[in-house]
Parts: sequence; structure tokens; C-alpha cells
Amino acid sequence: MLQACDSFLLCFLFSLPKAVKRRINALKQLQVKCAHIEAKFYEEVHDLERKYAALYQPLFDKRREFVTGDVEPTDAESEWHSENEEEDKLAGDMKSKVVIAEKEAEAAEEPAPRGIPEFWFTIFRNVDMLSELVQEYDEPILKHLQDIKVKFSDPGQPMSFVLEFHFEPNDYFTNSVLTKTYKMKSEPDKADPFSFEGPEIVDCDGCTIDWKKGKNVTVKTIKKKQKHKGRGTVRTITKQVPNDSFFNFFSPLKASGDGESLDEDSEFTLASDFEIGHFFRERIVPRAVLYFTGEAIEDDDNFEEGEEGEEEELEGDEEGEEEDDADASLKV
Amino acid sequence: MLQACDSFLLCFLFSLPKAVKRRINALKQLQVKCAHIEAKFYEEVHDLERKYAALYQPLFDKRREFVTGDVEPTDAESEWHSENEEEDKLAGDMKSKVVIAEKEAEAAEEPAPRGIPEFWFTIFRNVDMLSELVQEYDEPILKHLQDIKVKFSDPGQPMSFVLEFHFEPNDYFTNSVLTKTYKMKSEPDKADPFSFEGPEIVDCDGCTIDWKKGKNVTVKTIKKKQKHKGRGTVRTITKQVPNDSFFNFFSPLKASGDGESLDEDSEFTLASDFEIGHFFRERIVPRAVLYFTGEAIEDDDNFEEGEEGEEEELEGDEEGEEEDDADASLKV
Repeated sequence: MLQACDSFLLCFLFSLPKAVKRRINALKQLQVKCAHIEAKFYEEVHDLERKYAALYQPLFDKRREFVTGDVEPTDAESEWHSENEEEDKLAGDMKSKVVIAEKEAEAAEEPAPRGIPEFWFTIFRNVDMLSELVQEYDEPILKHLQDIKVKFSDPGQPMSFVLEFHFEPNDYFTNSVLTKTYKMKSEPDKADPFSFEGPEIVDCDGCTIDWKKGKNVTVKTIKKKQKHKGRGTVRTITKQVPNDSFFNFFSPLKASGDGESLDEDSEFTLASDFEIGHFFRERIVPRAVLYFTGEAIEDDDNFEEGEEGEEEELEGDEEGEEEDDADASLKV
Repeated sequence: MLQACDSFLLCFLFSLPKAVKRRINALKQLQVKCAHIEAKFYEEVHDLERKYAALYQPLFDKRREFVTGDVEPTDAESEWHSENEEEDKLAGDMKSKVVIAEKEAEAAEEPAPRGIPEFWFTIFRNVDMLSELVQEYDEPILKHLQDIKVKFSDPGQPMSFVLEFHFEPNDYFTNSVLTKTYKMKSEPDKADPFSFEGPEIVDCDGCTIDWKKGKNVTVKTIKKKQKHKGRGTVRTITKQVPNDSFFNFFSPLKASGDGESLDEDSEFTLASDFEIGHFFRERIVPRAVLYFTGEAIEDDDNFEEGEEGEEEELEGDEEGEEEDDADASLKV
């Protein structure tokens, strides 16, 4: 068994003959060139993503139509045989409760709902990262959310993507679409080329929400008493202050701009925002139904528990694992 | 704040009206179609990787020539100005030790070494995942390792990659190249299409090492005393048994084949092997010099510490961080 020690390593490097150090520097120069080739690779991957976005779109359009109820799936389109044993097992456990619930639903004889009611709102409720942002007063607004789309930047343009939140007409704001744009960078940093690991989100932009009168949940009005210094009289003034709300997602901090650097709290807020944007793009939009049913949430939990320096998913090392695919395969 | 509870979620799903369940099933069908499109996306990414492998190769060839000493870098090729403050700071701390070490080196007046001696062996020593496998008797053999190459499968062929370990002529075996082939799969599992997350390593193949007489470190000879049941006489027999060695990497278990499934220990061994193969391909071969100097090891450590459900790297949330790039950017 060998062991590496940092200071040992540095000492070893510095003690190397000059001719060898020179060759190591030459390798470092080559490594910087590799990083620039890698940046081009990721640009081409982005082009591929754009190409595939167009291939997914007809399926996502169909999804939207089924969700809103604009189109009813045919019998063939809605066939589904669960091959997931766990689901069936749980289904068994739930059976009694379910029968009651179904009977209650039938008894109520509510009119058949259109599409899949509260589809996107349910996803917000199921995903911790989002539900943490949603306030009670956001809920009735989010129930009007009808679709989320990801749009990639055009070829030749700076790398970015836009999240489009499509709303049906509602009592809260007049916009039919709210947007959040994430700007990316895919080039090695001059000062630290070796840290390059592919595109990064580096900044984002929100949009103006045209709130209807008295409906803006991102501000609240507070009353404040003011005492006149000389006369001692008291007057009450009202003041608008920021209010917690998911809709602050559309008024993000700016990462860059006036050269002033952000404080630590702001850095953290921005990093969380980037993470959410990435999550919408990579997980929620591509596999919305699985976040609606909860199937994807279980997968994400498993994903987070594993060691992931190399994104591996080691399986078969826990007895009684919930997953039924306990093989040795490595996701790369 | 909203919260989701698994059983609540299932109950909610089962209690939905039949017409809504039908639409959810239709979305699931669409989701399976998405998974198959995604599989094609990853095949195209693999094609891109093959294309870029050819672009990296001239740089890797130069690296090999500098490492072996076949070619000496020019002055321009070996210029390097460290812009990494941390490195300089540490360099300062080390200065006294280094000066001594350099003086000692000069005093010894050893002949100038050829290339970068023990380049690949040093990487094995620096990377925990590898050093754990290396036994003392493996070390002199690994000092003859001159290059590691990754070769991707040809277009139209089943997805795979080969790791080639190139050795200079040595006293241990006659092979000049040892190979390890990793077979991948990029298609959704029929029984569980939603778990698809891109190509997986599903199996691997080693190679035969033509050991010179008495040099095979992967077996050891043990002596065993046997007592004759009837006569009571004792004789000593010798027996060859497996021996711990890095070179067992070239005699992996088989994941598939005769339909028998592996036990849990074997699953784990195989999963570790896949992880190592993936690490060679994704990290060590593309950025070998950084594992030689230790720069990449620090990055990997940071990488492993972070939460990585979405591969994010949150920065700026720790005071006195070692990294000097404490911005909010998200690696995606």
C-alpha cells in the first residue's frame, strides 16, 4: 500500500532536477491546450443538446396537451403495464386506503376534471428544492402553471438557456410566460485553466412580472409608526418591503456587472439559484411525469446518497435495497 | 413550506379519477419514448468523444515523448508561469526544505535523468484508488509503464473503450501492451426504462500477461503439509494460489455470460473495477500531469466533498476556503 502526503509531494516536485521540472512544465502547457480542446467539445455537446431538444419537443407538446386537457390520449397511447415490482408491492400495502379513497371520490361524483389538474404545481410540491421556496400565497398562482419549456441559445450565440414558465390567464399577473435566462461559459479560466470541467452557469436574468393591482406576492406592505422629534406627535406610514415568494425567482441577483463582488450570502443565494435552474433544465422538464408521480424523487435520493466523485452508482452493496436492478453496472 | 410524504403521494395518485390516471399513463408512455431518444443522444456524444480523442492524440503523443525522453521540449514549449497563488504560497513555506533538497541533488551530481522518471508510477502512488491496489512487488514493474491510452470503439460497433498500458521492455513479462476493455450499454432497460441516465459500463475483459519465468506476481506458491491417513507419513506439497496485485486488474471477473448471477462480494469487486476503468478514462489519461503534480487530486477531493445530486459545486459558503475561485458559478 502506498500513501501520498501533500507536503511530501511538493517536496518531491521541488527536489526534481531542473531538466525534469522543465519537462513537467512542457506537459502543463500541453494540458492547457487540452483544456481548450475540451471547451470546444462541450460546445459541440451543447449543439447536440439543441438538436435533441427539437426531437423531444413533439413529445413535450403532446405532454402539454394531455396535461391541459386540450387533447385526450387514445386507448393505445394510455396503455401502461407497471413492471416495477416495488410499485406493485406498495400498491398492495395501499390497497385498503385506496379503495376507500376511490369510493369517496366516486361518491362525491365530482365532474370529471380536465387534463391532469395541478400537474406542475404537484411537481413543485414534490420536489424539496422547489417546495422550500413556495409560500402558501404562491400556491393558488402556481396552480395556473401549464408548462415549463427549456430553450437553448442559437448556434453561434453565447451559450445560454431560457426556462419558460407558461401560465393560463389568471387573476394575478397579465404575463402568459415568465422567463429565466441562464448564461453559461465554456472556456478555461486564464488564471486557473486546470479547473475547467465543462460549461458553467455564470449569470442569470429574470423578467418583469406585470402583477395585477394588489396581487404582487413578492412585496408586502407594513405599517410603521413615526414620532415627530420636536412636537411628539405620532403618525403611521405604510412601506413596501420584500416578501418571501417563489416568484422572487424571476428577480435574481446579478452575478456580474458593475465590478463589485458579491458578499458571501449573496454568493450562496446565487449558487442556489443556479442549482435550481440547472435542476429544471436537466431533471424536471425532461422527466416531469416522474416528479409528479414521485418516481424520480426516489431515484434522486439514491443518487445523492452515493459517492459521486465520478458519478458512479455502486449497487449491490446494500442488502434489501429498494432498487430492483442490483447489478454492478456503472453509470458513466 | 410544503412537504411530500411517500405514502401520501401514493395515496394521492391512487385516489385520482380514472380519466386522470389514464392521462398520467399516457405521459409515462411519452417518457419512455424520451428515454430512447436520450439513448441516441448519448450515442452521438460517444461519437463526439471519438472525434475529440483524435484531436487530443497529438498532444498525448507529445506528452509520451517528453515523458520517455525521446524528445526534449523547446524553451518555448517548457515556459510556465504559475498563476496559482496557493501554489506560490505553499512554495514559500517549502522554500527552506526545497533549497536543501536542491543542494543535495546538485551535490550528488547524478547523471541527468532521461524524460520524467517514474511518471506513471508516481501517478499510481498519488491516486488513492490505485495506490490501494499496488503491492510492494508491483512497484518495480509499474516503473516500466510508459503510457496509458484510451481507444474508443469504432463507429457502428457496440459501445466500448480499451485502456492500453504501454510498457518498455522489462524483466517481468514479454507483452509490450496490456489491455483492459470496458463494454458499455446505452439503452434504457426494458423493465425499468426510467432509470436510464446514459451509458453504463456493463462488463469488462482483461488480457493474458505473458509472465517471464518466476516473475508472476499474481500468484504465490505456498507449501502445505499432507499427512497420509493410513500410514501417518507426512509429505510437503507446493500449491499456487492467487496473490494480491495490481496486475489482477487484467484478470477481472465476468459480469455476464453463463447466466449465473454474481454474489454480493463479486458485485462489489466488479463495481470497483468499473469505477477504476472509468477513472482512468475520464480523469487520469486526459490530465495525467495534474495527477503527477497532485493538482488534480486536490480538485477531486473538493469534488467529492460537495453535494453532487446535480454535480453542482457550491462555493463561497465556507470561510477560508483553499480555492481562490470563490464565485457562484455552477459547473453543469
